[in-house]
Amino acid sequence: MGDLLSTINSPADLRSLDMTALQQLASEIRQEIIETVAKNGGHLAPNLGVVELTLALHRVFQTPRDKIVWDVGHQSYVHKLVTGRRPVFHTLRQFGGISGFPRPQESEHDAFGTGHSSTSISAALGLALARDLKGDNYSVVAVIGDGAMTGGMAFEALNHAGHHKTSLIVVLNDNEMSIAPNVGGLAKYLSRLRTDPMYSKGKEELEQLLKRIPAIGPRVVKAVERVKDSLKYLVVPGMFFEELGFIYLGPIDGHNIQAMINVFQQAKTTRGPVLVHVLTRKGRGYPPAEENADKFHGVGPFEVKTGQVIKKPGQPPSYTEVFGRTLVELGRRDKRIVAITAAMPSGTGLDHFAAAFPERFYDVGIAEQHAVTLGAGLAAGGLRPVVAIYSTFLQRAYDQVLHDVCLQNLPVTFALDRAGLVGEDGATHHGVFDFAYLRSIPNLVLMAPGDENELRRMLKTALEYPGPAVLRYPRSAGTGCPLDEEILPLPVGKARVLREGDDVTLLAAGTMVSLAGEAASLLEQQGIHATVINARFVKPLDEECITRYALRTRRVVTIEEHVLQGGFGSAVLELLGDRGLRNVQVIRLGIPDEFIEHGSRAVLLARCGLTVEVLVNTVLKALGAHRAKTKVKIGVQWP
Amino acid sequence: MGDLLSTINSPADLRSLDMTALQQLASEIRQEIIETVAKNGGHLAPNLGVVELTLALHRVFQTPRDKIVWDVGHQSYVHKLVTGRRPVFHTLRQFGGISGFPRPQESEHDAFGTGHSSTSISAALGLALARDLKGDNYSVVAVIGDGAMTGGMAFEALNHAGHHKTSLIVVLNDNEMSIAPNVGGLAKYLSRLRTDPMYSKGKEELEQLLKRIPAIGPRVVKAVERVKDSLKYLVVPGMFFEELGFIYLGPIDGHNIQAMINVFQQAKTTRGPVLVHVLTRKGRGYPPAEENADKFHGVGPFEVKTGQVIKKPGQPPSYTEVFGRTLVELGRRDKRIVAITAAMPSGTGLDHFAAAFPERFYDVGIAEQHAVTLGAGLAAGGLRPVVAIYSTFLQRAYDQVLHDVCLQNLPVTFALDRAGLVGEDGATHHGVFDFAYLRSIPNLVLMAPGDENELRRMLKTALEYPGPAVLRYPRSAGTGCPLDEEILPLPVGKARVLREGDDVTLLAAGTMVSLAGEAASLLEQQGIHATVINARFVKPLDEECITRYALRTRRVVTIEEHVLQGGFGSAVLELLGDRGLRNVQVIRLGIPDEFIEHGSRAVLLARCGLTVEVLVNTVLKALGAHRAKTKVKIGVQWP
Repeated sequence: MGDLLSTINSPADLRSLDMTALQQLASEIRQEIIETVAKNGGHLAPNLGVVELTLALHRVFQTPRDKIVWDVGHQSYVHKLVTGRRPVFHTLRQFGGISGFPRPQESEHDAFGTGHSSTSISAALGLALARDLKGDNYSVVAVIGDGAMTGGMAFEALNHAGHHKTSLIVVLNDNEMSIAPNVGGLAKYLSRLRTDPMYSKGKEELEQLLKRIPAIGPRVVKAVERVKDSLKYLVVPGMFFEELGFIYLGPIDGHNIQAMINVFQQAKTTRGPVLVHVLTRKGRGYPPAEENADKFHGVGPFEVKTGQVIKKPGQPPSYTEVFGRTLVELGRRDKRIVAITAAMPSGTGLDHFAAAFPERFYDVGIAEQHAVTLGAGLAAGGLRPVVAIYSTFLQRAYDQVLHDVCLQNLPVTFALDRAGLVGEDGATHHGVFDFAYLRSIPNLVLMAPGDENELRRMLKTALEYPGPAVLRYPRSAGTGCPLDEEILPLPVGKARVLREGDDVTLLAAGTMVSLAGEAASLLEQQGIHATVINARFVKPLDEECITRYALRTRRVVTIEEHVLQGGFGSAVLELLGDRGLRNVQVIRLGIPDEFIEHGSRAVLLARCGLTVEVLVNTVLKALGAHRAKTKVKIGVQWP
Repeated sequence: MGDLLSTINSPADLRSLDMTALQQLASEIRQEIIETVAKNGGHLAPNLGVVELTLALHRVFQTPRDKIVWDVGHQSYVHKLVTGRRPVFHTLRQFGGISGFPRPQESEHDAFGTGHSSTSISAALGLALARDLKGDNYSVVAVIGDGAMTGGMAFEALNHAGHHKTSLIVVLNDNEMSIAPNVGGLAKYLSRLRTDPMYSKGKEELEQLLKRIPAIGPRVVKAVERVKDSLKYLVVPGMFFEELGFIYLGPIDGHNIQAMINVFQQAKTTRGPVLVHVLTRKGRGYPPAEENADKFHGVGPFEVKTGQVIKKPGQPPSYTEVFGRTLVELGRRDKRIVAITAAMPSGTGLDHFAAAFPERFYDVGIAEQHAVTLGAGLAAGGLRPVVAIYSTFLQRAYDQVLHDVCLQNLPVTFALDRAGLVGEDGATHHGVFDFAYLRSIPNLVLMAPGDENELRRMLKTALEYPGPAVLRYPRSAGTGCPLDEEILPLPVGKARVLREGDDVTLLAAGTMVSLAGEAASLLEQQGIHATVINARFVKPLDEECITRYALRTRRVVTIEEHVLQGGFGSAVLELLGDRGLRNVQVIRLGIPDEFIEHGSRAVLLARCGLTVEVLVNTVLKALGAHRAKTKVKIGVQWP
């Protein structure tokens, strides 16, 4: 760790540094972040881009009294390093360590927890209005990227803040990217702001010009007055924001600490809502990340010298990869197939489709609501859209799935990647609510593949189904199973019985299927014969199959990588309850009713009791009551 | 019915009419709509505002070939009248009749179903992109109000459409209102567009002026060139939309049919995305609605002559009214209480709070996502926000409830009005999914009052609870129960046993509590002794109480005004399953797994089997199996 950085224990320590020292500190911070992320993985490029910005903010604003809200929050590492978390920074994103996102529980310097995009202006406005009502006078700052600015709720908040006129500072961190390069009219507009010299230099010359015009003659005086009235439209560069009621300052160089300090001080003393337009470069100071900001947006462990990502050898392709390649295969045969992403072309694996069929691929920016209803419109127009969104982000478009797609029974396919526990990104990113929020929607077919070959078949099934369908699959490597050359669709609503036994039925969804198979083998060694069923469909359930084996074995254990309330196990309870099967014991394994923190997927699964060991012990215990077998302690308790 | 209107059987019939005849037709259409809504209730003011607009659209565009998407859709009555639904228009919003919203199932002229706000541009863009890929060349038009334009997804769609550059026409129907007067920076901007003569008249004069400028001398030529470059910012009034990539046409008088026909024809032949800014007046042509557009936005039956709403005499105050007045009472004693609405001050009953504490009341426009996260920010700032949103519209902010409020365990109170079946507004507006989508979220307390006094106590409970809490209550009159003067909070997670009996437990949530009480009285007459429990809390359940009576009676019937998947009954199944109570029969009554159409609340409840009769019969049948009583046929089947 650098000499200067090791002396920074709180933001107050920044204030004694001169500009040379601050630049030295920026360099040390970059080194610290690169080394830590190279070990732990994390969001590298966004943090390298905001080193100077963060230092300037902490020079001008005094947290925790002043409030800084970091939109999305994956760019908060610098902030964490200078707000007392330097000594624990090496635990970043590790189980029990500090989070990769701002968390008020972690530090009083984190004014508001974030993780999903475009929330910061709303939260900051709330903090500002609370300040006003309580008669306080601290500053509130939202730091939001140009990518996040395309999310609709950021616009809703700008619109309200511009109307309300309370003092609030929005720092637009403009790096010309979301994760991938930005899309949209707003991005083009910002690009004009950055490059048009008119915007930043024209003011004085224009004023000179207008002073001379009256000399032309009285006939044009009226017109001149109109020109003067409209002068603001010529000299105010951020008209888009000004129209909404903001004062616009910028654009300024986001790697020039002194320049930013000056503008932030101006913003701090301005009454009403202010937008400061700061230009930064993602990955700044680390060439591999500057050159490939997309890859280094969020990254696994890598070699610092070369920027080479450290890959585990012999890993099977991920579900994401199989999805992406399969969609290209299917898209080749059916021209009605189109694909939509909300700013995640490579994260969703749609980059393959985009390369193969650029005219049938739509990146809508960070705009999940629009993505889903755009899909509905495409389906209404006779096409077969696939909307690929992470499970946690589809939460943003729950109403659109229900109201725009399912109510009209339109054939939109939803590919929900990162379903289940995502690991190091933690509580804000786990995709563990989708069965619950989707299962109650009429018309929707809900699938979870047990392996990547099944993913391929489910994608085909969804695309042939005449209504809306969802497939949800995890952030992980596949099982390595062989992939059928010909992709055959599955019969809708049919489960697959993997193994038959009379003692207990293990009823598994998605990722838990292989685990159930392993548990059954271990149980077999103890003389217990388990039926193992891959549910395949969480909706509609295979009622006949599940009922049959429930009656045969009288004991059912459901297992799912999803919260227990309202999930797959609940669907099974509903089925058996509605059929009046009272003499069947149902034990549900899943994620408990609390938010799950960050850590490796394996650790988190174990913590939630989603392991072979727990499943085996659960069965032994359940049977023990009947057979008086040896007692087995179920070892997992969430701390 | 007017003479001309009776000859209009399809949009083609409009094309032979001259301008005088069209104006006559407009007048007849107004009369028809006023008379029908006076009988059936419905959205009056929005439809009176778009009579000429709709006729002009149908003169220029040929549905069903061309596609018109009506945002929100409550302004589609004129469209329905001229697209073949005149003969059935008297059935508007009645069970089995035509819907108050566009529905593709109803007519091929309805290109896309709507009901919730701000979806039209996304859907229209989808239709336009599908057209392009299929090599078709029809026009796609989205008609969206200035209120709906404040919803974030409209912005997401504008941003994407402006980027994509496909041909698409957005008609901005600007009536300066959402339901209540509009809020936000965008509204102020539109108001400037409407009133600044610069915007509409300055173009020619300015061009003249700029031609003369070079005469001043060569020194200013450079500056002049900059002025010319920026000319578009002077002469293009809709800069905000132009910045996003749209061509802006307008503003034009939305009651001048010929003017609109001219502009729509221009828009039709323009390549790329076009925004046509049309100025209309809500309630146009019916003085009571012009003067009070808020009241006549959506209205029950009224007297045409006077505009007096026909009230049923002696009706107890509605849940909405009791909520609104109670919040004022509580707000008087606790200054931390603030209230948020998304453009529904009177619909939610918050108009009372707004009048009493204007500085503690926020109308954020049609922007549910922002409303919720603003609440989170206010709570993080130490206040006690109450976010009042209809159940169906909170679907829009599901992620914000989960991610911004519950994950941080912030004390935000959600008041969900219009929960359950809303009646005549139909499938797009029923609030029947909230238990399912909210129950799986950790930290959240979920309540449903059995009467309006309980509503008051639950509001107090929520405001004292140190985390997030929801109360959901119906669109209906209260029970007329007495209201306690002192509002006492309820113990969190405790149910209320209303009646004890050994034969069966009726476990009811919210609106179904009184029904369960009535059923128990009828059962008592047949010698069957029922326990009746008012659950009060759907989360956390009163586990001890429910388990005790389940064990005592061995038969439980749950009843809720909510879909059966993942709802209250499922929570009870989960509880009893987790406790291993296998010898308890649980029968769940609720709304089946399909979208429920429009009709009166009473008819819909009966269709869903949520009646005293069905509950009694269900119990008799369940007991019959054990006691060999007379068989009772359960009469209700969804058609």
